[in-house]
Amino acid sequence: MTMETVSENKAFGGTQGVYSHASEETGTGMNFAVYVPPHADGAKLPVLWFLSGLTCTHANVMEKGEYRAACAEHGVILVAPDTSPRGDDVPDAEDEYDFGKGAGFYVDATEEPWAKHYRMRSYIERELPELIAARFPADMDRQGITGHSMGGHGALTIGLRNADRFRSVSAFAPIVAPSQVPWGEKALGRYLGDDRQAWREYDAVALIEDGARVPELLVDQGTADQFLEEQLKPELLAAACKDAGIEATIRMQEGYDHSYYFISTFMADHVAWHAARLG
Amino acid sequence: MTMETVSENKAFGGTQGVYSHASEETGTGMNFAVYVPPHADGAKLPVLWFLSGLTCTHANVMEKGEYRAACAEHGVILVAPDTSPRGDDVPDAEDEYDFGKGAGFYVDATEEPWAKHYRMRSYIERELPELIAARFPADMDRQGITGHSMGGHGALTIGLRNADRFRSVSAFAPIVAPSQVPWGEKALGRYLGDDRQAWREYDAVALIEDGARVPELLVDQGTADQFLEEQLKPELLAAACKDAGIEATIRMQEGYDHSYYFISTFMADHVAWHAARLG
Repeated sequence: MTMETVSENKAFGGTQGVYSHASEETGTGMNFAVYVPPHADGAKLPVLWFLSGLTCTHANVMEKGEYRAACAEHGVILVAPDTSPRGDDVPDAEDEYDFGKGAGFYVDATEEPWAKHYRMRSYIERELPELIAARFPADMDRQGITGHSMGGHGALTIGLRNADRFRSVSAFAPIVAPSQVPWGEKALGRYLGDDRQAWREYDAVALIEDGARVPELLVDQGTADQFLEEQLKPELLAAACKDAGIEATIRMQEGYDHSYYFISTFMADHVAWHAARLG
Repeated sequence: MTMETVSENKAFGGTQGVYSHASEETGTGMNFAVYVPPHADGAKLPVLWFLSGLTCTHANVMEKGEYRAACAEHGVILVAPDTSPRGDDVPDAEDEYDFGKGAGFYVDATEEPWAKHYRMRSYIERELPELIAARFPADMDRQGITGHSMGGHGALTIGLRNADRFRSVSAFAPIVAPSQVPWGEKALGRYLGDDRQAWREYDAVALIEDGARVPELLVDQGTADQFLEEQLKPELLAAACKDAGIEATIRMQEGYDHSYYFISTFMADHVAWHAARLG
């Protein structure tokens, strides 16, 4: 399991690294960021995954997310993967920010020409965790997951499908029901085809309707988010959780938009919330 | 005094804004960033200036500096100016990252072709403070100043020349003696000419040797900074302060480099340090 170090910088007593590896799932080189906080020799630390949104790479949250102070305080590793396969061999939808590169939607695509490389579900669920377990001081029995927008969708769906693995699930301004909104209809339709039944395992609200359960969810959502009404629709998640008996804390944050200024404001809260549940 | 709003985003309960105006000093449009923390109606808040380093604009510290949590906690406005005049009319030294655009060195240039636009000293010392005073809830009797690298040089020299105006002066990895290092010799020589006597008011160590005084200084400097030995030389500042009776706290931070990972780690400390002195 080879991995190359792209960069490492000391930060808040720990190390913010960027690494690359050849992914079997995507068939491409993949970059990811890992922050390892200061820790005692030999210690194994809980892991928080942060899945990023449309157009992002690993770098956006690494530069703008302001998670390191909280991760250092609570002794939590944060892993930030890329959002799609990359490279000249990977088919793309040029001039579309919401599909193709930068917009993998955390699915394993089944439609051509996407099926070969666009395997972000298996990459995040299986391949990258194996690499993290092998190469970092990570306690893989204590994992939480969060993310933003498309990455919030990723965190909710991956968390709901793998409740045995993720003890804590939260999200910032997530796409909660991609089957019911333009971003999701476009992406799931093209990656997965017209059969909407196949979309349900990539839709947090549908997963809950179909029986997936986690004990609780934390969601922050800005009221001034330009995508709130058309794309995000947190009320659909609230209703599904209520019906399912999932304790969902959905905090409408007055005046906040969809940017990293919003994310960074509530990042420390989320890190602390996960840390409390990861022990 | 016209000013345009480029963007405003809610963050940590306050507003991170980017603004532009037509500068008389530089003869160009100038952008700057201001974070105004949450505050009571009618309150006037202390102001901390952050001057950025080579290649930077206002945006680097705004995105990577992680100052907003501390500014919100302590009720401090942070102002981040650009580092040079900009625009097609402004002469530049292309392919030189350490001179021309992005490298104004906080001087009023006297040599051609730089003298007309490269007036960052007067811009920071006079023009922009007037705009800040007029347009933001700022108490200009409570100002502190800090900065990074070339901007650390700017903070130290502007602070030393205007001790009546800046109650607190700190820096991250500053160029403390530009007259004695390659970055500074190049920039001061070309902006100001060969007469090294004219450089002394733009050299923190020389200013202290010539009698400038502040009660105290706080400097953080990473030991793994790639520019430490050739360009930064904090030992020269330590010696000058010792001779002058200035209480200089120069903290050598083990393993930190010259990046924003270093700056962000110690930013909250600096904000708190300034806030304590600004009352």
